[in-house]
Amino acid sequence: MSAIGIIATLRVQAGKEEEFEGVFAELAPAVRAGEPGNSYYRLFRTGEAGVYKVLECYDDEAATEAHRASDHFRTLGAKLGPCLAGAPEIERLTAV
Amino acid sequence: MSAIGIIATLRVQAGKEEEFEGVFAELAPAVRAGEPGNSYYRLFRTGEAGVYKVLECYDDEAATEAHRASDHFRTLGAKLGPCLAGAPEIERLTAV
Repeated sequence: MSAIGIIATLRVQAGKEEEFEGVFAELAPAVRAGEPGNSYYRLFRTGEAGVYKVLECYDDEAATEAHRASDHFRTLGAKLGPCLAGAPEIERLTAV
Repeated sequence: MSAIGIIATLRVQAGKEEEFEGVFAELAPAVRAGEPGNSYYRLFRTGEAGVYKVLECYDDEAATEAHRASDHFRTLGAKLGPCLAGAPEIERLTAV
């Protein structure tokens, strides 16, 4: 099975950027350290204010499910939600 | 200086996908092995036929310049060009 890439686009409410980045600073290392099926997970600012992209890669579908079901994602994800200005946009990719 | 992320979107001519992927199979390991300032470089198929995205990360601006100036990028990039249906779209990101 091919690895799965994800580009997650997150729009953060004005004034919530610092809080959002702070939660992510806890989440990203937890993902990398705690999910053996994750091979990449990094947060980036885009050229548009308040718009972020997370670049992610997982070994397979089960690894993406393990990510969503993880304690760290559920706990810290719940803290990210109130920072967002809308639902995340998720683009799924297939590694070549 | 923050690390630099890049999402490069490449549209490949119909029928040239196999040739394109073959060149990339040489290029990606050369980037990862030969560029100390590169920390990620991986090719993905998107949900749209013939459209690929490369997810990339570099330590700094100098590392992006070293990538573009590298022998492997210049040599293998020249082989990718004839496979493409248009100019690559490059989105630059800033690591948080």
